[in-house]
This record gives sequence, C-alpha cells and structure tokens, in this order.
Amino acid sequence: MRTQEYARSVFNQRPVPTVMVVGGGFGGLYAARALARHPLRVVLIDRVNYHLFQPLLYQVATAALSPGEIAEPLRAILRKNRNVEVLLGDVTAIDREARCVKLEDGAELTYDFLVLATGARHSYFAHPEWEAVAPGLKSLADALEMRRRILLAFELAERERDQTRRQALLTFVVIGGGPTGVELAGAIAEIARHTVSRDFRNYDPRQARIILFERGERVLEQYPPDLSASAVRALERLGVEVHTGESATEVTADCVRTEREVIPTHTALWAAGVLASPLGRQLGVEVDRSGRVPVQPDLSVAGHPEIFVIGDLASSRQPNGKMLPGIAPVAIQQGNAVAANIWRAVQGQPRRPFHYFDRGSMATIGRAAAVAEIRALHLTGFLAWIAWLVVHIFFLIGFENRMLVIFQWAWSYVSYERGARLITGPWRAEKC
Amino acid sequence: MRTQEYARSVFNQRPVPTVMVVGGGFGGLYAARALARHPLRVVLIDRVNYHLFQPLLYQVATAALSPGEIAEPLRAILRKNRNVEVLLGDVTAIDREARCVKLEDGAELTYDFLVLATGARHSYFAHPEWEAVAPGLKSLADALEMRRRILLAFELAERERDQTRRQALLTFVVIGGGPTGVELAGAIAEIARHTVSRDFRNYDPRQARIILFERGERVLEQYPPDLSASAVRALERLGVEVHTGESATEVTADCVRTEREVIPTHTALWAAGVLASPLGRQLGVEVDRSGRVPVQPDLSVAGHPEIFVIGDLASSRQPNGKMLPGIAPVAIQQGNAVAANIWRAVQGQPRRPFHYFDRGSMATIGRAAAVAEIRALHLTGFLAWIAWLVVHIFFLIGFENRMLVIFQWAWSYVSYERGARLITGPWRAEKC
Repeated sequence: MRTQEYARSVFNQRPVPTVMVVGGGFGGLYAARALARHPLRVVLIDRVNYHLFQPLLYQVATAALSPGEIAEPLRAILRKNRNVEVLLGDVTAIDREARCVKLEDGAELTYDFLVLATGARHSYFAHPEWEAVAPGLKSLADALEMRRRILLAFELAERERDQTRRQALLTFVVIGGGPTGVELAGAIAEIARHTVSRDFRNYDPRQARIILFERGERVLEQYPPDLSASAVRALERLGVEVHTGESATEVTADCVRTEREVIPTHTALWAAGVLASPLGRQLGVEVDRSGRVPVQPDLSVAGHPEIFVIGDLASSRQPNGKMLPGIAPVAIQQGNAVAANIWRAVQGQPRRPFHYFDRGSMATIGRAAAVAEIRALHLTGFLAWIAWLVVHIFFLIGFENRMLVIFQWAWSYVSYERGARLITGPWRAEKC
Repeated sequence: MRTQEYARSVFNQRPVPTVMVVGGGFGGLYAARALARHPLRVVLIDRVNYHLFQPLLYQVATAALSPGEIAEPLRAILRKNRNVEVLLGDVTAIDREARCVKLEDGAELTYDFLVLATGARHSYFAHPEWEAVAPGLKSLADALEMRRRILLAFELAERERDQTRRQALLTFVVIGGGPTGVELAGAIAEIARHTVSRDFRNYDPRQARIILFERGERVLEQYPPDLSASAVRALERLGVEVHTGESATEVTADCVRTEREVIPTHTALWAAGVLASPLGRQLGVEVDRSGRVPVQPDLSVAGHPEIFVIGDLASSRQPNGKMLPGIAPVAIQQGNAVAANIWRAVQGQPRRPFHYFDRGSMATIGRAAAVAEIRALHLTGFLAWIAWLVVHIFFLIGFENRMLVIFQWAWSYVSYERGARLITGPWRAEKC
C-alpha cells in the first residue's frame, strides 16, 4: 500500500512516465510486476487475456492438464497493481520517432519507455508448408491441436481394418530432440503404454511406435552429455525410438522422410526450430537468423535507450560470449532487470548491465524420470523428477492452479489416467 | 467378472446379438452400461470421444469450470466392459430394412437392436440467421464460444472510449427463461459484480446490464409458481433484469429487439428452444414439431420393435398423458429401461412399459441460491443450493472430475474467482 500511496501522490504532482510492455509471457509479466512497484504508469498489452505457463504446455498437448490449469488471466494477476492497465490488443507497428505503438484497429498508444517481450513462434526453416501437417507447440491453440491429433489417431485406428494403414495411424513422429521434443515423445509413449492400453477392442495400443528425430549428435544438446545419455535410456525404456543425426527432408500428411528412411505416419509433431516475433524487425537494427534482436548490456536497443527487448525475442549474450537460451528463467530475470533500469533512468541514475544467474535447467521424460543440471550437480531419474515437480509447481502462477495441478499429477500418478482426454475441434474435416 | 465369464462362454457357443447405441449422452451411456451386464455385443457410437455432463455446461460457458472437468472419455468409462466397443463416428443414415447404420465415411454397421439417443440441438424457430449472433448452449464448442464472447465483451469495453458503445458492450441479453437461461444470467451477473469487479481501470464492471427475456408468463415455468417467484427474487438480487411476457423479434450483431424495446448489445445468448437430432426423421414415423420421435410404451418405434428411441430425441408420455421433460434423469431411466427390455426380448420374455420415477428437479441461480422441487417439497435459497451441489457432484462421472469440481467450487466460493477465464479462439475476426 505504501508504494501505491506514493504513486498516487506523485501522480497528482506531475505526469508520470508511461511504460508500455508488449507481451504477457514470463518476460513481460515479470517486468510489469516489477515496474508496478514504482510510481509509473504501466500498460501491458497482449493478444490473449492470460499468462501462459509455457513449460507445462506439452502437458496440455498430451491431455494431462486442461488449458485453464496452466493459464491465468493477466488482469487477475495484476488486479492489485492499480497503476497497471492491461489491454487485450495486437500491436502491429512501432513508431520509434513518435514513440507510439499501433494496434490492429488503428489505435495509437504513446509511451515513454517500451519493453518488447513478444517471444517466438516455431519455425519450419525453408518449409512453411510443413506447418499444416506437423503442428508446433507455442500457444494453447497449438497444444489443443496436438492433443486432437494424438487422440484422434488412436480413435481412427480402432475403426481401421487394414493392418498397414492402422500401423501408420499408430506411428507418432516427433521432430526435434530439445526439451519439448523429449517431453512430448515421453508423454505420447506413456499414453500408448499405460493410459489407453486397455481402451481399444480391435488393436493393442502398445503396438504404437513413437520415433524422435534429432538432427544433431544427441538429444538435449544444451545439457551435458551424461544427461543426454540418461534421457535416451529413459525414453527407450518407455519404448521411444531415438534417431539422432537424422532430420526430416520431407513432411506430408501421410509420411515423414529423412536422409535414411521413410516413416508412414499421420501424426508428425514439430519441436525443431523457433523464429522470433516479427515486431523485432521494426526496431531499426539487424536481427539474427532466428529473428532475434541484438541488445545492449542494459537490454536496450542500440540508438534507442527507451526501447528494451527481453525474453525469446532478445539476442543476449553472457559476459563470456555465450548466447542465453530461450527459457523462462532468462526472461524472468530480464523482466526484473529492465524494470530496475527503467526506474534508474527515470531517476537519472546510471543503468546496470544485465547478468544472468543460472540456477540450472531441467527436462522431464514421462512418469518419474527427468534430467536436471544444477550447476555442477547432475540429477537423473526419480530425484530429478521430484526436483522438476517442485520447481514447476512453485513457479506456477496462482494458488488455485497450483492446487489443481498437484491434484491432477497425484491422480495421474496413481491411476495412469490423464485428466483432459478430449478431442475438440472438427475431426471429420481433418480425417486422414 | 462372473457376468463377463458368462458372456465369454455364450460368445463361444453362438453368435450374440449386436446392440448398437448411437449417442453417448446420458441416455446412450446408461443404456450401454446396463446392456454390458448381459452377454450381448454392444457398440456405442458418438461423434465425440467423451460423455458430457450437460447440466454443468453453463459453468464452462461462464468460465467457472474447464471442459475436461465435465467431460470424461467414453472409452475410459466403459474400459472394463469388455463386450462394449466404442467407436468415434458420425451416423448419417439408418437402413431399417437391412438393419444397419451408415457412417460418414460410408462404412456400414449391422445391428440386431438399435438404441437411438442422439439428443437435441437448440432451435431458432423461424430465424436460423440468429444462430451466428446469439449462440446456444448444447456442446463444449458452444460453451467455449459463449465464454469467449462474454469475456471478450469486458475486454473490448476496457479499450472503448465512447460511453454509448461501451454500455452496449457491457449489456448481456439472455433469451429464454428456462433453467439454462436462468443459470446463465445469474452466472454472468456474478462475473460482473464479483469476479472482474476490480479488474478494469477504465470503467466499473458493475455497470454491466444483464437482461433475461422469457416469452412466457414466468421463468422456470416447468416449476411451481412459488419457485419461479423465488428465482426471480434471487436473480434481481444479483442485478439481473427479468423481463417476462417479452420475446425477441430481431437479433443482430449489435442489438436485440422485442415487442416492447430495443436493447443495444453485442452479446446475445440463446436459451430458448430445442430441436431434436435429424436422425429421428429416418425412422418412418411422423416426428413432432420439435423433431422428437413418438415412442411406444416400451420406448420402441411403431412397426420396429428392434429400434428404441430415448432421451431428448424421444417424445414420451407418462401414463397421465404428460410429456416427459428433456432432462438427464429421464434419459438415464430410459437408458436403463431399454437395456432391460432388450435383454427380455433376447430371452423371449415380454417387454415392460417405461415408467418415469420423478425424483424432482432443480436449478441454480448464482452463488448460494437455487430452487428445487422434490415431490411436494419446495426448497429455495442456500438449502436448495446445497442440495444442487450434492446431486450434481454425485452424478458427475469419474472420481477425478468430482474432486476437481469440488475444489473449483470451494475455491470460487471463498475467492469469487473463476478458474477458466480464458479467451480462446480468434477474437480479432469476431470483433464487434
């Protein structure tokens, strides 16, 4: 309350600077929350009305959690921050000279400081036509589309009498062996081996093949080699076939072709590449191959000290020259750092360079298995999985969501059941 | 297990009759479960892969519950009934002579007995064009569309500077004063008065108008007059304007016109009429005005003792000549009765006429208020609400769903929060 009273008194004395934050992901939300503590006017704009807890998105795609459990309305999160205004809107252009952003309906909103945190989509490199046949996983809509395809394949297999066509329906190909690909492949294997294992009368779901392609030498290549090897062992125990050094050369509605083989499948899932939000191209600086905006040590854009870029949209390096990965902890710390620098700038103090504090990273592989790298400590198996659970529950926004997710996970653990096995959307139009 | 062993032994001796159940709502699901106890081959076909607990659908439409919490996969429910086969399919035609149904892809499935339980959709009477501007509430997709429109109206009001246009965005019109209309109007009023009351910076959500139109003399007209009056008082306490004896004469994207007034609104919701599934027209008997199929006392169709119609698709009368209402308890009892009659027919025993046992009915009006008629007992207010909670939790299928719904309700009760306040789907295309 004290800060807000201070804000009010300042508001009454002179116009307060407006900080516009575009994007309500980890970077934007944490920036807005940190900015709200200062006597500033904060406007948070997003195309959706919720903050999405993206690390658990694969659990929606694999029917374990419902969308509402990993998403929380931005308004509800920021309700008590009376100096924060949340707007549902789509920023289509940035006018750096006039210091304003344009929305999809032509409305113009001016800012004193701009924080751009619009993230990234998946990229199909030179093959945009693959998007229609191999969906990626960045939004809730993406996750529901993946869920629809995975569950529908099992349903159509029940009606299919031809053995070859049925096996194609029961073949799932995940392209890309990063954390998302590993988590997806593990979760699909669990669905086939456990969740639906006794649900069909005309075939045994355990005959499903789950194949993970990684073009590099090993999966989870941002992790140390011993953790990659441990992840492969965990995936293979679940029945996932891990093919490294192999990448998709053609993806169609009924097959995936690589340098070495042709896999008949109707369910290809994309976890291979990302491309940053197109807004980054409007800042007058050259973006990198993935569309990311190079930033100064204080996370501002060269030539525009009032514009900051954070999260997956930023191309930011540690002092040792290593590129920061596109993960939630980086975005969160950048959001907080930017808020501090803006407040310093308002007060006329010098800005500070951003330093990422690496607390470690982790990925999960199905039930009761994970890998975690916490500085020199490498965890695998059950212990890593417990660590993963605790961290993800802890960072989940909203008490209600935490309780629901804990309950769903506990129930899934004892029952092998998945709480959101719904096929929604038009299945007839999309039949293979 | 004993029944199943018996079934297996009978299966091995001679071909068992095939009972085809079309539709996995209350009627079809309970019929399939009851049939599964006998040595019969049961095939349950539905267009979706889940059983929907329709009495709580309005809670999804008003962001209180997630779709996964009121839907359970048909396969999971019937997993242990090894003589039941669940098929995802859309029955497009019935060949009564050949005793087979045709699916959307041309596949033909033969039956010895057919149970038709495909329910009803909402009806716009002579105005099919109203469907695009005033969605009804029968499926999960309908509920998500309503939720999107309700939440989006509040969001767009935050961006609207014109006072008149903002008030139109903040006006919600519910057409039809049956249980669904009453429940919807009460829930929207709660959202405006409590859930989002402190979430907007540019207007006070409590200025929202919620108007309920009922063409008849009173709301909840299937209930006794004292309960209708009590429902109106509860609605008015929440701020809902109840207009009886007034019906929509025109519904467009920006207004609802009645015999007496014109209400500028962008959010009209339809809860006024139902039309039975078109499959009922393929049975060779004349359907009633709502498309319902008249049935014999044993629930079979005249001239076709092997075809049964139950639930909202059936036009069935009690011995006193009163038409049975389209509610879950009727469908459930009919499902069980049909299963018993089919088993009697297989054994060569005479069939029994269906008698509905009326345990009462109830509707809820927002937080801590409801009306219930249990034979001579009329309950209102908190007591009726508790009865409503207990009955709805008890009949919800699946232990996991029951726990999740209890938790969500308890949490909403203490926090006034709603667990699924997500706008999903393309909002830009649909902007007012």
